[in-house]
Amino acid sequence: MWERSVVVSAPGKAILHGEHAVVHGKVALAVALDLRTFLRLRRCGERGVCVRLPGVGVVRSWDVPSLQALRRGFAADFDESKSPSAEQLDMLKEFAGIAAGASAPESLATLAFLYMYLAISAKHGDVPSVDILVWSELPTGAGLGSSAAYTVCLAAALLTACGAISCPLKEGEPTARWTEEELALINRWAFQGERVIHGSPSGVDNAVGTWGGALRYQSGKITPLKRVPMLKILLTNTKVPRSTKVLVAGVKEKILKFPAIMNPVLDSIDAISQECQSVLEAMPANPSPEYYPVLEELFDINQHHLNVMGAGHPSLDRLCGVTASHGLHSKLTGAGGGGCGITLLRPDTSPLAVEAAKRDLCACGFECWETSIGASGVTLHSSSSLSTQVLHALAES
Amino acid sequence: MWERSVVVSAPGKAILHGEHAVVHGKVALAVALDLRTFLRLRRCGERGVCVRLPGVGVVRSWDVPSLQALRRGFAADFDESKSPSAEQLDMLKEFAGIAAGASAPESLATLAFLYMYLAISAKHGDVPSVDILVWSELPTGAGLGSSAAYTVCLAAALLTACGAISCPLKEGEPTARWTEEELALINRWAFQGERVIHGSPSGVDNAVGTWGGALRYQSGKITPLKRVPMLKILLTNTKVPRSTKVLVAGVKEKILKFPAIMNPVLDSIDAISQECQSVLEAMPANPSPEYYPVLEELFDINQHHLNVMGAGHPSLDRLCGVTASHGLHSKLTGAGGGGCGITLLRPDTSPLAVEAAKRDLCACGFECWETSIGASGVTLHSSSSLSTQVLHALAES
Repeated sequence: MWERSVVVSAPGKAILHGEHAVVHGKVALAVALDLRTFLRLRRCGERGVCVRLPGVGVVRSWDVPSLQALRRGFAADFDESKSPSAEQLDMLKEFAGIAAGASAPESLATLAFLYMYLAISAKHGDVPSVDILVWSELPTGAGLGSSAAYTVCLAAALLTACGAISCPLKEGEPTARWTEEELALINRWAFQGERVIHGSPSGVDNAVGTWGGALRYQSGKITPLKRVPMLKILLTNTKVPRSTKVLVAGVKEKILKFPAIMNPVLDSIDAISQECQSVLEAMPANPSPEYYPVLEELFDINQHHLNVMGAGHPSLDRLCGVTASHGLHSKLTGAGGGGCGITLLRPDTSPLAVEAAKRDLCACGFECWETSIGASGVTLHSSSSLSTQVLHALAES
Repeated sequence: MWERSVVVSAPGKAILHGEHAVVHGKVALAVALDLRTFLRLRRCGERGVCVRLPGVGVVRSWDVPSLQALRRGFAADFDESKSPSAEQLDMLKEFAGIAAGASAPESLATLAFLYMYLAISAKHGDVPSVDILVWSELPTGAGLGSSAAYTVCLAAALLTACGAISCPLKEGEPTARWTEEELALINRWAFQGERVIHGSPSGVDNAVGTWGGALRYQSGKITPLKRVPMLKILLTNTKVPRSTKVLVAGVKEKILKFPAIMNPVLDSIDAISQECQSVLEAMPANPSPEYYPVLEELFDINQHHLNVMGAGHPSLDRLCGVTASHGLHSKLTGAGGGGCGITLLRPDTSPLAVEAAKRDLCACGFECWETSIGASGVTLHSSSSLSTQVLHALAES
C-alpha cells in the first residue's frame, strides 16, 4: 500500500528505424528514451483534486463532490478496453471549460487527466483527494512521446492510489517496477489517455513508456525486444516545425507515383529494422565493439532512404553533416521534414568530440540532449533515486 | 570514295543511371555526351604513317615497309570479331618500344592504333600512307569514354581510308553518317581497340561512340533507345582520383554483408533506369516540360542509392549541394568515390543560374563543362561543320 506520496516516471520514445515504412506494413523499432516525465502524487487533506503541469501551463483543481457528480452523469460505464466516446469527451470539455476544437497541449492534458481520473475511479474504486505535479525532461510536440509518458505516469499513479495495483517499492530500495500484469493494466489505461489526446494513436508510445527498452511494431502488433542494451545517443531537435500528416501523405504519393522504385526502398527499410533488432538482441550477451559500426551503417543507409521518401529537410542534412564532421552518424527520427534527429555515440566516443558536436549543433539553433536509448519503462521512485533537478522541480508546490 | 582528307568525330559517354547496379545484372542507361573526340586523317606523300595525339603526348611515326613486315610476322590472322591475343600485343609493344606493363594513356593509345591499323589493313586491304591527328574535348581517365571515342574515330577513319566503308559526305553537306551495316563494322573494330586498351571492356562505350543517343545495357546485351532527346547538362569533374575496381569491390562486399538491405536497393535502381528510359523515349514525341521534374527526381533518388552503396564521396556531396543551392539536381556518374557528376539543366533554366553554378563549382576546384547528352554518334565532317576551336586544333601539323 502506498502511504502519503508516490513519485513515478516514464520514458519518452524515439523511432530507431522504420518511421514512414511502418505506415505501409513494414517493421518499425521504437526505443525508450532516457528523457523522462516525472509525476508526484500526494494525498491531500482537502476534498479536492489538484493537477499541475507547469511545463505546459496547466494548474487546475476541482472538488471531489463535483467530480463524483460528473462521473454519475456519464451514461456509459468506463473500462480500460473501451475508447473514450465523443459524448464523454464533450461532457468533460464542458465541465473543464475547454472549447470544442481545442488542441493545445494544456487542454488535451487536462482532458486526459479528467478522463483517466474518472474512468479509473469508476472501474477500480475511488481515488482519494490528491495533488498531482508533473515535470518532464521531454519537449512536447517533438514526436518524442511526451503525451504517452504523461498518460503512463498518470495511469501508474492513479491505479496505485486507488489500490488497483500494488506499491512495490520496498524500504531502502531506490526504485521499483510493477509485475507484468500490473504493467499491462497501466499500459491499457495509458492507451485510453493517449486516445483522448491523439484520437487514434498506434499504442507504440504508451507501450514504450510502460515497458521501456525497445519494441518492434508491425501492422498493429507490438512485441517488446527480449534484451536490449542501453546505448548513448545525442538527441537533437532542429525546432523546424512539420506536419506528420502532410509528410505521411507525401510519402504515400511518391509510392503511388513510382511504385517499382519506392516499394523496394520500403523493403530495404524493413530489412534494416530486422537487422537492427538482431544486433540489439545480440549485444547484451556479447557486448563486442564490432556492433557499433553496423548500427552506424544502418543509420546512414536509412537516412538516405528517408531522403528518398521525401522525409528529409535541409535542417536534417545539416544535423547529419555537423555530426559527421565529428565522426558521428545520425538519422532523422519520427516524421522528418524537420523535427528531431538521433546520433549514435559509441562507448569510446571521446567526451570532447561529443561536446564539440553539441556546441556545433547548438550553433545551428538546434536543441541537443545527451541521453540514452533502451531506458527503463514506468518506474516507482524513492526520493533518494531522484536527481536534485527532479527533486527541485517536484518540490515546487 | 574519300579524297585527300577526312575528319571524323565521336562522342564521349556518361552513365545516366545504373552504374554499379549493372555489375549485378541490373539495367544501366548510357548516353552520348556532346564532348567529342575529333580525328583528321590525311593522305601523305611519304611512305609512312604518322599519329599524333597532342592531348596525351603521342607523336609517333613509322615507315610503311616496317609496318608491313610487322603484319607478316603475326601468326594469327586479324578479324574484327577476334580479341587481340597476348602474343600480338607483346609483339606490338616490342615494335613500338613500350614496356611490358605500361598502362599510361600514350602507350595504350599507340598500341590501339598499331593493332587497329594492322588488323584493318590485313582484313580489308592496305591503308595508304596517312597522317593522323587526334584532338579531344574529353578529359582522359575520367570515366567519360575518351578511349572509346578515340577507337571509334580510328575505326571509322581507317575503314574509310582502306575503302571498307563508304565516304558518305556529299558536296555541300556539313556532316554525314554511315549506314547501319557500316556503323556495325566500325563498332566491332572500335571494340577491338577498346580491348587493347582495357582488356575486357563491356562494349558500352564504343557502342555509345558509334550510335550516339542513349542505350540500355543489361547482362551483356546492348540495346539502343529508339528516339532520344538532346538534354542540356553540366558535367563536372571533381578531379578526386578513384579506383573503379576498389569501388566495385566495396559495393559487392556491402551486398554480401547486408543482402536483404542492399538487394532491394539494386531493384530500385533497376526501376529508376527503366522509368528513365520510358521518359526519354516519350519526350521527343511529346516534349512537355512535365518530364523534367521526373528526371530530376530520379537523379536525386539514385544519388541517395549510390551513397547507400558506398559510391559517394564528400566531393560529390559538395557538387550536389552547390548545384542544389541553384535549384539544380545532380548525381554522380560512373564509378563514384570522386570522379564526375552530372547536373540536369531544363530548357528554361536561366543562363544566369547556370553561370552561377559553374562559378561555384569551379571555386570548389572542380572542372565544369556545359554540354548535352543524347549527342550524335560517329560523324563525318566537312570543314564548314567544325568550330574554329576544332579547326584550329586540327590545323596544327
